[in-house]
Amino acid sequence: MSLERKPIDYGAASREVRDVYDDIMATRGTDWVNNFWKVLAHDPVALRRLWGNIKEVMAPGGALDPLTKELLYLAVSASNGCRYCIASHGAAAQAKGMTPEQYSELLAIVGLANETNRLVTALDVEVDPRFLA
Amino acid sequence: MSLERKPIDYGAASREVRDVYDDIMATRGTDWVNNFWKVLAHDPVALRRLWGNIKEVMAPGGALDPLTKELLYLAVSASNGCRYCIASHGAAAQAKGMTPEQYSELLAIVGLANETNRLVTALDVEVDPRFLA
Amino acid sequence: MSLERKPIDYGAASREVRDVYDDIMATRGTDWVNNFWKVLAHDPVALRRLWGNIKEVMAPGGALDPLTKELLYLAVSASNGCRYCIASHGAAAQAKGMTPEQYSELLAIVGLANETNRLVTALDVEVDPRFLA
Amino acid sequence: MSLERKPIDYGAASREVRDVYDDIMATRGTDWVNNFWKVLAHDPVALRRLWGNIKEVMAPGGALDPLTKELLYLAVSASNGCRYCIASHGAAAQAKGMTPEQYSELLAIVGLANETNRLVTALDVEVDPRFLA
Amino acid sequence: MSLERKPIDYGAASREVRDVYDDIMATRGTDWVNNFWKVLAHDPVALRRLWGNIKEVMAPGGALDPLTKELLYLAVSASNGCRYCIASHGAAAQAKGMTPEQYSELLAIVGLANETNRLVTALDVEVDPRFLA
Amino acid sequence: MSLERKPIDYGAASREVRDVYDDIMATRGTDWVNNFWKVLAHDPVALRRLWGNIKEVMAPGGALDPLTKELLYLAVSASNGCRYCIASHGAAAQAKGMTPEQYSELLAIVGLANETNRLVTALDVEVDPRFLA
Repeated sequence: MSLERKPIDYGAASREVRDVYDDIMATRGTDWVNNFWKVLAHDPVALRRLWGNIKEVMAPGGALDPLTKELLYLAVSASNGCRYCIASHGAAAQAKGMTPEQYSELLAIVGLANETNRLVTALDVEVDPRFLA
Repeated sequence: MSLERKPIDYGAASREVRDVYDDIMATRGTDWVNNFWKVLAHDPVALRRLWGNIKEVMAPGGALDPLTKELLYLAVSASNGCRYCIASHGAAAQAKGMTPEQYSELLAIVGLANETNRLVTALDVEVDPRFLA
Repeated sequence: MSLERKPIDYGAASREVRDVYDDIMATRGTDWVNNFWKVLAHDPVALRRLWGNIKEVMAPGGALDPLTKELLYLAVSASNGCRYCIASHGAAAQAKGMTPEQYSELLAIVGLANETNRLVTALDVEVDPRFLA
Repeated sequence: MSLERKPIDYGAASREVRDVYDDIMATRGTDWVNNFWKVLAHDPVALRRLWGNIKEVMAPGGALDPLTKELLYLAVSASNGCRYCIASHGAAAQAKGMTPEQYSELLAIVGLANETNRLVTALDVEVDPRFLA
Repeated sequence: MSLERKPIDYGAASREVRDVYDDIMATRGTDWVNNFWKVLAHDPVALRRLWGNIKEVMAPGGALDPLTKELLYLAVSASNGCRYCIASHGAAAQAKGMTPEQYSELLAIVGLANETNRLVTALDVEVDPRFLA
Repeated sequence: MSLERKPIDYGAASREVRDVYDDIMATRGTDWVNNFWKVLAHDPVALRRLWGNIKEVMAPGGALDPLTKELLYLAVSASNGCRYCIASHGAAAQAKGMTPEQYSELLAIVGLANETNRLVTALDVEVDPRFLA
């Protein structure tokens, strides 16, 4: 009785799951659904909830442009060491125009932030009053 | 003999440390140096090395514009829970034009990425072949 | 121009924010709203979205009883070192019946899991075939 | 001279290691030992110490029932992204009665806690006085 | 009903807790007990268990000398951002001879390791066969 | 258009990259370069910068001896769960004399520090005045 959850393909999915898959494909203008959603589909309520979150947070038309949003998602995923997330959000960022040079700069920032974040916390640096003004 | 390292002000700094402080202010076009550098100054070699890294990685003229770079630094710092870094890079991002609406969207992405990163890893989702092509 | 976001009290809140506050209080059977929501209220869309998530995930009537759900939320928050979250979910768990002895056992598990999680990962232990069967 | 430590089977184990293996099997009512212990066995002192900790912390008869304890261990392991630990504690939780629906709810809580933990910390939300009373 | 646990002083402690306090002071050759143990004392079983672990793992006479052990504990604590642990293990390391220059080098390594650890994981670098030989 | 970055061998590298490879081999007294640098080589500026950092921080002749430095790097890498880094810094530590017994003790400290770091933070233990004197 492994906990493993295999991806559920469209053909094998319930109506409720297919509705979410259809919305994912329509929103993204694609004809396929990636594995994250197919694995989440074992819990249709979580599938609908999480897709609703992603759809709202990553929607175009906000204060940040779509590429910047993907770069931010990618940077956090790289910082957290989530390989699948790097692959999926990296692909999304590339589809929105991210160049290899931009990806290199993003990685450099992720690495350096992790270095200085740890040093600042370890040294317990006091916040400068100017930052709070 | 506490390990605490108090900020070293310009007036109390060695020549070697002042040189770095001068370069920080000249590069940023400011007349002050924030506490992170003043605390690092207890180790002048690390001060020079880390400032050199930040200066190079965050330099304008790269593939990403300066605001996007600050947003990425800020997002990683928020994800890592480094309050000082949020304050300092938040101030830098605001100086480069970040609006409250953009900050709200950034936070939403940081939060959601931490949720999905954990789920993806826990579920051990296999990378879709299309992401590797 | 600090990034600090002060809690927005009911009296100072917009209609849209008050609607969420009202739903929080009605759902919980309380006459107050805790600071997390009042700070999130600077972004009414995020406030609505996150409350919707919490309301759905933590709803009674699922497969896990409400106390167990709070204990799980509390354990993850303790593992992540989120003090506010420990305070808020700790209070919620106590309201649902958590005793000091149960909290002690929860903390012991959180601590020990962090020890063995790191050792298992560092030692790169291979998953036993029986766990996958 | 790789650092890799292969599992040490019962037949190849020292008396001191076998004694721990025997206690693991007797305590659990099983006829096998999983790889974590077999890899730790390269350091018999650590093996004995860690098994002693697990045996004490996870013992039945405490304030939390055995299934709840396993769910908490599993939730922390999922939050930390330790795949082996998810597999082993997931199997233990299933053996104690965890259903797929309960596992889905546990994962939803782990994901959401990681989202709100990061937001609370980034927003530096002040603890409500009521939580401290 | 706050979850807060105040330190339990010797005079207010049970016999069972005093026994552990006595062993801590005798082992360390000191006449006081630091707050970590006094807070853990709310759960005497955990107090005894965790002190037993620390006493065994940090005991002199092993393969690593006592200063190196403290430096390792301090480095992990700095990497994890545990301020209390930095203060307590930093004091212990100083008592065993750590100089300010050594602490600076330790911090530099902690920072840099966090940078390269993230980059290596994000880039999914394949382990060189020579490291496995 | 995968984000994957394959190692760039010496023969396929640009002059600028070869210069760094040459310095790595000369500094280490080896005739090969490990995959981390070969993958970083896709961004020659980052390659030069990061190698410069490692060369400076890990240089012999400082306040900590070379083996202790490697043990600290290894401990942080183990705590962060970076398998490649464990393999590479583990090999470097072995080359500098780390014994299997020392590695076992290092792992025990990494594990225990992760347990107590979490407990201390969750319990919000107040720093003893003696640690600040």
